[in-house]
Amino acid sequence: MYEFDEDTAVRVQADGSYRGTVTDRWSVGDRPNGGYLMAIGLRAMAQTLAQPDPLTVTTHFLRSPAPGPVAVEVEVVRKGRTVETAEARLHSGDREHVRMLATFGDLRAATGPTQVLLRAPALPGPERCVPLPSEAKLPDGTTATIMQRFDVRMTPESVGWVMGRPSARAEAQGWVRFRDDRPADLISLVQVLDAFAPAVLAAGHRGSVPTIELTAHFRAHPAPGWLRLVTRTNVLVDGYLEEEAEVWDAEDRLVAQARQFARLAGAGEG
Amino acid sequence: MYEFDEDTAVRVQADGSYRGTVTDRWSVGDRPNGGYLMAIGLRAMAQTLAQPDPLTVTTHFLRSPAPGPVAVEVEVVRKGRTVETAEARLHSGDREHVRMLATFGDLRAATGPTQVLLRAPALPGPERCVPLPSEAKLPDGTTATIMQRFDVRMTPESVGWVMGRPSARAEAQGWVRFRDDRPADLISLVQVLDAFAPAVLAAGHRGSVPTIELTAHFRAHPAPGWLRLVTRTNVLVDGYLEEEAEVWDAEDRLVAQARQFARLAGAGEG
Repeated sequence: MYEFDEDTAVRVQADGSYRGTVTDRWSVGDRPNGGYLMAIGLRAMAQTLAQPDPLTVTTHFLRSPAPGPVAVEVEVVRKGRTVETAEARLHSGDREHVRMLATFGDLRAATGPTQVLLRAPALPGPERCVPLPSEAKLPDGTTATIMQRFDVRMTPESVGWVMGRPSARAEAQGWVRFRDDRPADLISLVQVLDAFAPAVLAAGHRGSVPTIELTAHFRAHPAPGWLRLVTRTNVLVDGYLEEEAEVWDAEDRLVAQARQFARLAGAGEG
Repeated sequence: MYEFDEDTAVRVQADGSYRGTVTDRWSVGDRPNGGYLMAIGLRAMAQTLAQPDPLTVTTHFLRSPAPGPVAVEVEVVRKGRTVETAEARLHSGDREHVRMLATFGDLRAATGPTQVLLRAPALPGPERCVPLPSEAKLPDGTTATIMQRFDVRMTPESVGWVMGRPSARAEAQGWVRFRDDRPADLISLVQVLDAFAPAVLAAGHRGSVPTIELTAHFRAHPAPGWLRLVTRTNVLVDGYLEEEAEVWDAEDRLVAQARQFARLAGAGEG
């Protein structure tokens, strides 16, 4: 069993809720990464619903959980012939950490016109990009255990800020795959979407960037191999920002897309 | 009182829920427009929460309501010092129509860095664009009462498809304001974001385009005057599509941004 599947597994309880465990293996500093929490919630929703694929999921991050047991309540909001909507609440006791709202369907059964006006990013190959070390320290001195799970190769322009050479654009591009060679699937894409440091840091801004809300769309089952992730912040106003993310697979298909709303929190703001 | 305020008003009940009325004045065909339903839900959340401004709201469209009374249940998910999260359910009896999840804050109180990498769209002035008639018939012969409420001026390129001259891009651009001169505010921006026909039709595709999910971010209080709306579909795959929307105010500020996940439904698919 791969680490991702082990660490996102949920077991249904007699009352219909789910239990899982938030491990410390997908953290940035002392906080479990947002994509990891979303994956746990999606696993519980997928076990509840008849439709196989998440199509769109929105997550509001309420309070960061400490590693340990977590409960997931899933409410089926709407059952339908082609799509189903559900809500999930991750909590420990009376502390809710994450609220999610998602619609599931079946991407492989979909039929209709196709017209794609975005192009896959042309990146230098993974061997010509900058591998992030698995034991990397963050600028604030904390470690990111998630880097022990993901093999990330950033374009040189995307990591200039770490050496004090920020770029004009708040953008990051690179390659991502699981270090243990787990093949990507739709649910693991939420982890990939959230695998980079905030793009706003690439433009030289400093601070922590807590995500308030992240919405992901799932567009195709990913092909085996490296994934390309591109993230970008276009609009930072008075500390509030959006960040776009696109994941492209080895066959040049857009497999997932996300936009998050976050806050660039200055020193002392937390 | 302006029509928008009258038609989105909600009154709190003894049990803490809200009652409102879905009128037939903001419909496309026999369906109340999605932006109108979102505005009703946001009004109920705004009355419940202490924070004044929606920052991000996600809506899943479950079943279209018929015009008539509607109930809105609001659950406060998280109270916080600077942001609050709430959920709203619009229903009539046991039929839930819309489920919303939103975080509110205070845009005017926000402080922090600003860096905007998007540019306001350069459109020909409203007087050089194509006014949509208030009694317009849709291509399928139905009427859109919402056009009696909004003054919309589309760029000539955006309406070519109506005369059988689709464009290469699935994009629409134009000016929007209330016909009764109601000033725009944050909540009314969800109506503006959803005021155009689906952008995918501009590229010559045909069918109905039911929205599954729409997430809007609110970035600034709009200045008085015309708003510019730009919508675009970049990725249509097997009938599933995303549509981006940006609203810019008269002072060239991005005031709201949205992305929706929708389905281009062919004839007979409904």
